[in-house]
Amino acid sequence: MDNPLLVEALRGHARESMHRGAVAVLDADGRVVAALGDIHRPVFPRSAVKVLQALPLVESGAADALGLDDEALATACASHGGEPAHTAVVERTLGLVGLDAGALECGTQWPSHDRAARALAASGHEASALTNNCSGKHAGFLCLACRMHGRDGLRGFAKGYVGPDHPVMRTVTAALQAATGCDLAQAPRGTDGCSIPTFAIPLEKLALAFARVGTGNGLASGHAAAARRLRAAVARHPFMVAGSGRFDTRVMERLGERVFCKVGAEGVFCAALPEQGLGVAIKMDDGNNARAAEVAMAAVVEAFVRLDDAEATFMRGLSDVTLRNWNGLEVGSLRALPALRAALRS
Amino acid sequence: MDNPLLVEALRGHARESMHRGAVAVLDADGRVVAALGDIHRPVFPRSAVKVLQALPLVESGAADALGLDDEALATACASHGGEPAHTAVVERTLGLVGLDAGALECGTQWPSHDRAARALAASGHEASALTNNCSGKHAGFLCLACRMHGRDGLRGFAKGYVGPDHPVMRTVTAALQAATGCDLAQAPRGTDGCSIPTFAIPLEKLALAFARVGTGNGLASGHAAAARRLRAAVARHPFMVAGSGRFDTRVMERLGERVFCKVGAEGVFCAALPEQGLGVAIKMDDGNNARAAEVAMAAVVEAFVRLDDAEATFMRGLSDVTLRNWNGLEVGSLRALPALRAALRS
Repeated sequence: MDNPLLVEALRGHARESMHRGAVAVLDADGRVVAALGDIHRPVFPRSAVKVLQALPLVESGAADALGLDDEALATACASHGGEPAHTAVVERTLGLVGLDAGALECGTQWPSHDRAARALAASGHEASALTNNCSGKHAGFLCLACRMHGRDGLRGFAKGYVGPDHPVMRTVTAALQAATGCDLAQAPRGTDGCSIPTFAIPLEKLALAFARVGTGNGLASGHAAAARRLRAAVARHPFMVAGSGRFDTRVMERLGERVFCKVGAEGVFCAALPEQGLGVAIKMDDGNNARAAEVAMAAVVEAFVRLDDAEATFMRGLSDVTLRNWNGLEVGSLRALPALRAALRS
Repeated sequence: MDNPLLVEALRGHARESMHRGAVAVLDADGRVVAALGDIHRPVFPRSAVKVLQALPLVESGAADALGLDDEALATACASHGGEPAHTAVVERTLGLVGLDAGALECGTQWPSHDRAARALAASGHEASALTNNCSGKHAGFLCLACRMHGRDGLRGFAKGYVGPDHPVMRTVTAALQAATGCDLAQAPRGTDGCSIPTFAIPLEKLALAFARVGTGNGLASGHAAAARRLRAAVARHPFMVAGSGRFDTRVMERLGERVFCKVGAEGVFCAALPEQGLGVAIKMDDGNNARAAEVAMAAVVEAFVRLDDAEATFMRGLSDVTLRNWNGLEVGSLRALPALRAALRS
């Protein structure tokens, strides 16, 4: 089945490009509230499920035992831009368990935030695992490792924590399985950008998991409490979960706890809408997240979240985006298609 | 009509993302040699037609009068990475007509080549119009302006050269119209990233224009000679047309004059295959050029160009690409779909 067109890019008044995809909106009982396209096909959620992968960090007692603050918890759920404020939190978190960047197994990446990358270069520094967009999540894994093993010989225990059979990753995968209700042993498995396993999961199960994250319903009590705490941490520090100018940061700075949203690579986007008790999962066929998945998510937020006029105008600026060129001239727009809006309203 | 799937991205063994698009391969007589998808719908060719926009630079006599060398001509056809070797040529070209970066109207852009952007920042410099990927094309426009007007008062004459009604842009648009055989006054018009007009043109007409560029057939003699000279210049300096690690540069470094290819924004890719007398035009629906259009173009080159074993292996590495993560681990692949290869062979 072909997924429908959800987003188009116009240049002048002509369509220049277009994006197909699927959208699932479910409540925590598994009821499908809206569905476009194939929501049963397994998709790799990539970084969109970092909050699920962070549940054991809190549920295990690691966060409390180490005194992790909200910034550290938000960064554990982040695909951050590698800006100085991000790397400072990651370094601080690693310090709490007596480790440093050398223990991170996410790989070296220049800051994904261009300005931060240039500033880093200008200061004479190089990319590192700290500036990898996943370093906060990995610091969280190492805190979990510390809780499981203790500080003595932690570096040795943690070595290889990204592998699917390491005790840390088994715990993380179990949390993902519990939240989504998927048998991940049977799911297609790949390796993520940061070297941990990623499992292909149907959009409807991802949306269900986010409805559970937003409500606590359907989660074991420890995971429900962990989800509540992680959401609150991100709502207090939305900069930590993404960064300057980023969609997730901008939306949560504006809407606070009413939206918990998280982009993933390859056009995946998940969200919890706690007031409505809904979870959302989007996958663009072409893997475009920087623009297509964001525009679709903005339209979902507009359709379901109660917004005042100023908030509605703000969100419309994200679902119907003016495109400008290098001279700042308006050259076109990027917008959620009327068919997407109609399907979400019905 | 839906365009067919041309390219897929696999993670592990599962399909993660996919790209639809259309491909036109024509000879200079307008015979369709291969067609996938809708090749009649107008698409904005963006930077893929820079060679057509550079025809007047040579045909007018500007290149000869100013003594432009092959590097300058190749850069006039370029979407370069803003690397120092690129900006040096642009500055030199501007100097020949007594102008500097202040006369460029393409807008300020940090080098699109990440390493060059970081090196520029590290050296304490800022982005400028010189580092804009289109600066070579614009320097060519200013050389044409000099030929049309003379040096006296050139800066004043050239002001606003990006506008559709400026004498320089009228000449450039006329060359595009002549090569494609499209009535551009009737075509959908938009503004390009560098502020010049861009006209939506059917893929079959773009492929025809590139068959003409590759053979000279169907072009006025001055344009045919200009096309030959521009192709030769790019074949001698393929670095100038794109840059470090870029598809266009790598392919033309390897295959020389046998392929003249040029990527455009939003998933457009055009090429001339002079030995076969063919022109190629590709548009990916989703606008993805960095990966999807390139993979499709590599498959087209494999299908039509006579390659020795080493060249075939090289091209296969561009149409069936191993994807690695931040740790250098193999995580998947990006590949031309068998249906695309089959349609090109038939």
